[in-house]
Amino acid sequence: MYKLVFFGLGTIGREILKTALLKRSFKIAGGVDVNPDIIGKDLGELIGEEKLGVNVVDSIKKIEEADVVVHSTSSFLKITLPQFKEIMEAGFSVISTCEELFYPFHFHKKEAEMLDKIAKENGVSILGAGINPGFVLDTLVSFITTVSRDIEKITAERYLDASKRRKQLQLKVGASLSKEEFDTLKKDGKLGHIGLPESLTYIFDSLGWKIKDIENSLEPVIAEEDFETEYLKIKKESVRGQHQVAKGISEDGREIKLILRMAVGEKESFDRIRIKGIPDIDLKIDGGVHGDIGTSTVIINYIPGLMKLPPGLHSTRDLPLPHFTM
Amino acid sequence: MYKLVFFGLGTIGREILKTALLKRSFKIAGGVDVNPDIIGKDLGELIGEEKLGVNVVDSIKKIEEADVVVHSTSSFLKITLPQFKEIMEAGFSVISTCEELFYPFHFHKKEAEMLDKIAKENGVSILGAGINPGFVLDTLVSFITTVSRDIEKITAERYLDASKRRKQLQLKVGASLSKEEFDTLKKDGKLGHIGLPESLTYIFDSLGWKIKDIENSLEPVIAEEDFETEYLKIKKESVRGQHQVAKGISEDGREIKLILRMAVGEKESFDRIRIKGIPDIDLKIDGGVHGDIGTSTVIINYIPGLMKLPPGLHSTRDLPLPHFTM
Repeated sequence: MYKLVFFGLGTIGREILKTALLKRSFKIAGGVDVNPDIIGKDLGELIGEEKLGVNVVDSIKKIEEADVVVHSTSSFLKITLPQFKEIMEAGFSVISTCEELFYPFHFHKKEAEMLDKIAKENGVSILGAGINPGFVLDTLVSFITTVSRDIEKITAERYLDASKRRKQLQLKVGASLSKEEFDTLKKDGKLGHIGLPESLTYIFDSLGWKIKDIENSLEPVIAEEDFETEYLKIKKESVRGQHQVAKGISEDGREIKLILRMAVGEKESFDRIRIKGIPDIDLKIDGGVHGDIGTSTVIINYIPGLMKLPPGLHSTRDLPLPHFTM
Repeated sequence: MYKLVFFGLGTIGREILKTALLKRSFKIAGGVDVNPDIIGKDLGELIGEEKLGVNVVDSIKKIEEADVVVHSTSSFLKITLPQFKEIMEAGFSVISTCEELFYPFHFHKKEAEMLDKIAKENGVSILGAGINPGFVLDTLVSFITTVSRDIEKITAERYLDASKRRKQLQLKVGASLSKEEFDTLKKDGKLGHIGLPESLTYIFDSLGWKIKDIENSLEPVIAEEDFETEYLKIKKESVRGQHQVAKGISEDGREIKLILRMAVGEKESFDRIRIKGIPDIDLKIDGGVHGDIGTSTVIINYIPGLMKLPPGLHSTRDLPLPHFTM
């Protein structure tokens, strides 16, 4: 039985809480959020369920006991690093949906070293995870290469019809913007999924391939006709979503390409991994794995494995083979 | 760099050797076989490659140094257990394709306890693996449940068109037998894939579900027309392969079903895992993973993880997340 404290109780934090409540392996021991609207509220009520007798507090310092803190506040280490420091110095391990934490060993080396040091000094573990990054385009890709004798090229894709997903996601992928608005926001770094280059470097390191070159491109998907979702009206010729590609070449010319296409009106949602090698592999998950539910289940199901690891900053590659937790 | 010794150099042992030779992480340190035709021969020559300067010997006692012994002699613990004992008492860890070793904790409890004891006494590790059992119908199934919030039912299938596979496999699945011959051999326990119930119990234990009931059925696949392979002629109404099902029900009524269909003339080869739950999952590997190559790659790619585990008998669930090894 692991005692969980939730740090950040927005949409994703609440999804993870819902998953945790279905499991007998976890006890909800606390909640922390800075949002004044929910401080003092019961965590059960927050998700429309029965009271849990556990209220949201405004600081991790008010938490007395936890095995692991489930953290979900931001995609960026510049925001989350001080939070991780505070949590670990309070003596708690961390699992976080922070995208940049998933695999910080290439793009945030200094922060990774710092987090590893703080974790070890406090005898705790820290891991970034989720469905993407954290599972479909990295951990699963890495795992499926177990059947590979040789590999020439890997292509992993996640295609998502955003039309039935929440408004926040539809806006995040640029749906309903004009092409000019998309380009401006893109230039300001305000569009695009965080974590795709992290997934790419994770796979390179799994395979033991040295990276020669990495590209990360983001393009709008233009509406061929008018679309209408529950939340948005998308005019023909405007943007209905994003098409992002992270591509890397190894020093000996091997390629890994990750494609993330999220758009309103996509004909099909799926996750697909293709390996050109010995043997060729073509793995497809029809319908894909639902993002919010997937993140919540992955976070919860990684926790027992994380608790078995020595103190430090980890990646999902260190986990004993994860699986469903009761 | 891990020093490998091959114990058993039949078809599968040689396939694993071929995979190992492509990798820089391994050094071929020896070979052991009882077949007088190959004792004294160079391991490289055995697989039609350049000499390795390592000859086959007739006993593990003649091996001086190894990190892990790659064992492939038989599917049955009653044959392999004394071999494992000898290898581990010589101070070497073991990875084996022995199907009953993959997950002996239900059907061979006493043997499992004995192997665990011998391993610990000698400070070595032992693991059973392969593509099936060992990957597609168990380890991958278990891993993919990481995205599951709740699970009602799991169906995992491996369909294989045996027509392009080696003669040994075509005969193993009963191709060209009459229905009566199939039934007689089945009654004598001389047909059917070994390891399917092992895969089933592995998944139950991963999920933490208590088993109420297990069935394991084996039926012939009857030829609707004449077939001809490179090796066999199969008359209409005779047997072209086998259809095996292992099914388990948990104490609270949840179901896991594994289907292994291997027959000459199957329209499609594939591996597929379907989960009915939250969320539903439908994962398919088009073409399936080639059995002999797959077993060789899985064995080789599990070795670095096995070397990180403490002494004892392990299952693939204990491994740090496996992946391609250079």
